[in-house]
Parts: sequence; C-alpha cells; structure tokens
Amino acid sequence: MQDRGLALGIDVGGTKTAFGFVDRKGALYNATIMATKAFKSAEDFMSRLYRRIEEVRADLPFPYCLCGIGIGAPNAHHDRGTIEKAVNLNWGETVDFVALVRKYYDLPVSITNDANAAALGEMLFGNARGMKHFLVITLGTGLGSGIVADGRLLYGASGFAGELGHTVVDPDGRPCRCGKRGCLETYVSAAGLRKTALELLAERCDQTLLRAMSDEDMTSKRIFDLAVEGDVIALEAFDRTARILGMKLADAVAHLSPEAIFLAGGLSEAGDLLLKPTEQYMKDFMFGAYRDTVKLMPSGLETGASAVLGASALIWSGNSHSHECQTRV
Amino acid sequence: MQDRGLALGIDVGGTKTAFGFVDRKGALYNATIMATKAFKSAEDFMSRLYRRIEEVRADLPFPYCLCGIGIGAPNAHHDRGTIEKAVNLNWGETVDFVALVRKYYDLPVSITNDANAAALGEMLFGNARGMKHFLVITLGTGLGSGIVADGRLLYGASGFAGELGHTVVDPDGRPCRCGKRGCLETYVSAAGLRKTALELLAERCDQTLLRAMSDEDMTSKRIFDLAVEGDVIALEAFDRTARILGMKLADAVAHLSPEAIFLAGGLSEAGDLLLKPTEQYMKDFMFGAYRDTVKLMPSGLETGASAVLGASALIWSGNSHSHECQTRV
Repeated sequence: MQDRGLALGIDVGGTKTAFGFVDRKGALYNATIMATKAFKSAEDFMSRLYRRIEEVRADLPFPYCLCGIGIGAPNAHHDRGTIEKAVNLNWGETVDFVALVRKYYDLPVSITNDANAAALGEMLFGNARGMKHFLVITLGTGLGSGIVADGRLLYGASGFAGELGHTVVDPDGRPCRCGKRGCLETYVSAAGLRKTALELLAERCDQTLLRAMSDEDMTSKRIFDLAVEGDVIALEAFDRTARILGMKLADAVAHLSPEAIFLAGGLSEAGDLLLKPTEQYMKDFMFGAYRDTVKLMPSGLETGASAVLGASALIWSGNSHSHECQTRV
Repeated sequence: MQDRGLALGIDVGGTKTAFGFVDRKGALYNATIMATKAFKSAEDFMSRLYRRIEEVRADLPFPYCLCGIGIGAPNAHHDRGTIEKAVNLNWGETVDFVALVRKYYDLPVSITNDANAAALGEMLFGNARGMKHFLVITLGTGLGSGIVADGRLLYGASGFAGELGHTVVDPDGRPCRCGKRGCLETYVSAAGLRKTALELLAERCDQTLLRAMSDEDMTSKRIFDLAVEGDVIALEAFDRTARILGMKLADAVAHLSPEAIFLAGGLSEAGDLLLKPTEQYMKDFMFGAYRDTVKLMPSGLETGASAVLGASALIWSGNSHSHECQTRV
C-alpha cells in the first residue's frame, strides 16, 4: 500500500499558534497548540516551532509523505511569502516567513492570510465545495475576509484584497486599531459586540445582568449566554451587530455577487442568533438583481480546526510556491 | 492586402442607441446614433436598427470583414444573452437580445452591461491596457461599475457582479429608483449632484446663481460651470459628492485591491474638480495596506465613443458567445 500524503497546516495567531497534519480529504491528525507571544523574534519562534512539529510528527500512527507546509498568518503576503507589519506579532516590519520555514524543511511552502486560508479550507473541506464565487467572513477579535472569485482566491494588485473589516460603516464612528474611524470590525467582532452592549447600557434603562459586569468581564460569550436567556440588551446588541453586518454584506454582494457567504470564527458560534437577523438585514439592503442568488451560511468547518485545515488547503489546492519535492519518512 | 477586420459595437441606452465599426486598434468608423425610445418592442427596435446598420455599413470607405457584434446594454446578462428588467427600455421582463440580433446576423454576438463594456474598452483601448485588476466607474444619470479581476470581467454567481451604484451610503438616505434607500448612485451621479446642490441651498445662506435656477433647470453641467467660476455652493456640492465617492471607492479597494480605478461617463468630464478631491478622500478612508497601491484616473476613452468602443471590445477580447464565423463583404 502507498504511503498517505499529509500536509502540515500551521495557523500563526497573535497569542497562540496551532498546527496539525491534514490528509487529502481533510482529516486532521495530531492537532497541537503552542504559545506565540513568548518569542521576541520570528527566528526564535520558528526554532521552537520546528522542535514541536518534529516531536508531534514522531507520534503520527501511520506511514506518510509530508507533501508540503501551508501557513495562515495575519498580514501574510502570498506572493512575497512574507508577514508584513503584523501588529499582534511584534516581529518587525517584514518577516520573510516562507524563507524561514525553508531553512528547516525543503518542501513546498505556502503562506496566506488567515481569512484567505479559511476560504480555501471552506472550498476544499467545508460548505463551499463545488462553489466558484463565495466569501468567508471570520468573526473573532477582528473581522477578516477571504474572497473566492471564479474559483480562485482574490489577491488583487497589492496581494491584500479582501479586508472587509476595514470598510467604512461610519466615517465619524469608533476608532479602529488601523488608525481609521468607523471600520466594520469595530462594530462586528467580539470586541465590537461588547462596545455595542456598553453603548446600549448607556442609552437604555432596561434591567439587564450586563449592568453587573465590568467592561473587562463582559465577553462576547457572556453577552451570547444572556441573549439566549432573553436578556433585552444582549438581544439588541446582537441585532445591531447583525444590522451593520447585513448592510455591509449587501455591499459585498454588490461588488462580487457570490453564491454564498460563510460566517466563521468565534463569534459565528452564536449561530442563528447572529445568522438569521444578518440574513434578513442583508436581504433588506440588497439590490434586487441579487435576491435569491446568495445564501448566508455557517462555515462547514469546526472553529477550532478550521484555521489549520485552511492552512493545509494551500498545499492541497496547489497554491504553494514550489511543487518539486516530497519527503518520505 | 488582406481585408481589415471590424467589430460592430452597439450601445443600447434608454434614450438613444449608438453604434459604429471598430478595428483591432480601437479606431472607430461611421459612428451613428438613433433613438431608442420610439420603439414599443425589442423586435421593432431591432428591425429598425438592422436597416440603419446596413445603411451605415454601405458607406465604410474600405474593404473589411465583419468579425462580430458586441452589445452593451442596461441589465444585460452576458451568459444568458438577455436584457432583463431594464426599466428604462420598457421591453418587458426578459428580452433574448442575442437571439434577436442573430436573426439578422449569423456572426459571433456578445452582450454585457454597459459598465462592463466600458471596462473592457478601457482594458483594450484605454488607460487600463496591461492591467489585471481595475474598476471602471461610469458616472451618468446613474452610477455603473465594471470590475476586472485577474484580467477578466467579474460576473459572479448571478452574472450581475459590480453594481456599486447600489451599495449603501445611508440606510435612511435618499430614495433610489431600485426601491432601496441611500444607494451610492442617489448621491454620486448627475442626478445626485443636483440633489446635493438643492440640499445645500436649503442648508446654507450663501449667495449663489443656483438660487435663480429651478430644479428642472439645474443640470450637472451648470453646477460644474458655476464651480469653475468659484461659486461656493457649487464647489461644496462637488466636494460632498467627492467625499461620498471617495469613501465608497475605499470600500471597493478593501474588496478588490485594484491597481487603478477609472472614472468615465458624463459627470467625469468635470475632470480634476471631481477627481482630485475624490482621490484625497479615497486615501483618507483607505486601509493602510492599500496606500500607494491604487491610482484614481480618468478614462482613456472619449466619453462619446467609449460605450461603442467598449461594446466592440467584447468581440476583440474574445468574449463572444460563438467564434465560428466571419463574413466577408
């Protein structure tokens, strides 16, 4: 019997880095997490990551070929193989991350930003299988987006296409960590939901358990739990979030006319509480020609696994920088 | 010497239809205009158009091959070959326009919406030559847009991708003919500029010659002429228009990351008066990663000729439905 091909998927996040080995059908093996924050430089980080990968790799329970390494990371540039100005990583202006990985592995290596990786994962292993035009919106601390048009990830002229989190909701609105004001992600994200809840506490007089929480204690998960219990302010916070998201997704449809938009990431675990009103608002704000042509759907991938699956999809979809080698163990 | 290939370009508009013969390099011959409004049905219209085309064709001063017919029309669907729900044409729900043209000409025939045709024209004959990612914004009575991504017109799942005129500026804003509120084209278009001028007349006390004009008399050309003379209200009307356009173009960049955005159509003839402030606002509203990656430029095609050139570009770029035949005369 032939050895089984596995791609190593690595998701580099500001706090933690997840990796694991993924086969052609999207089965994930030996998923592992390590801290990202502890390292001052990309070199230190990679040196430690290499040792962890090799430890974990030794435990794989069957013979395999390592076909390549796919990486999802904030502010990653696919063509240049770099991570650029990633404020959460603090590794300096530009890190040539693909070259760094190649010091350890003479394999196909490919990098893209985390939301693009999520889109590729959705296309190969999730609910976008068979689709040629779709968007994935990742709702976490911020709002990321990956766009697939005509069956390919859209990179645009800069390589950074698809930053819907920084479209403008209100030019005089909330300050964004990007330096602008009123960006979509200041409203629609875990942090945005919390801010909206605080605004509502100021505007309204309704009784709510949110009044007993400090800003620091008020997580999106807690707002979700209260909304499920029928808390008026928590429900209204979700509704306002959905309205803004629905409006901006209708704009995205007017640009791209996708077949579907997928919600992924931590905040999307609110499920129908966010999805249903967003869908309704999106329809309300949508140009007539698009009605009934677009579905709003949850990601088909588990939140914990999707980033690693998406990163590995860079290899399985043939989006790597070189295809020359396979290592057999 | 070989016969010269010509494509017939037809631009079907609500009021008038323009057509002409275009060679491979974008030279336009025997450009002609006829009324569109006079006809009750697409069949009547096409019958008359056929006779006009044949008359004009007889006057072409050199031997040629007619290589195909490209058509730009409102609400045209490229793949289906149809014009659908075009309110300004009043020809019913769906007209199978390509089939209608084929009754008269056994040639490659291709149709797309007018803004997409403008984008193809820009790519083949205008300022977008050599570009793979760009947008054309047509500013006339409404606001149309054609998107080229990875060197191809973006149609999306519905075939109607790129309706930036119906992105949302203000959910409680001006009513749009599409039935929604606050669409971009209700602010940024010849009609939108007039409305903005009227709003300013209501808000401000400044002296301006606009106060002597009725709504009906207040054309965008007159507002432009006054702005050139330094009229405060006319200048402010252009500035507000530019701010909204710049904001929404920054959103478009966050989706598509184009290399350039081109302004075309009647209102774009305002030139730097619109272009310069729009460029500045676009930069102000733009996510940092895109700065200095996008140019805002005027179309490279003459306003009068661009629609016909764009329509003919459907044939010259190989976007026609069939490629089997050439007619020699």
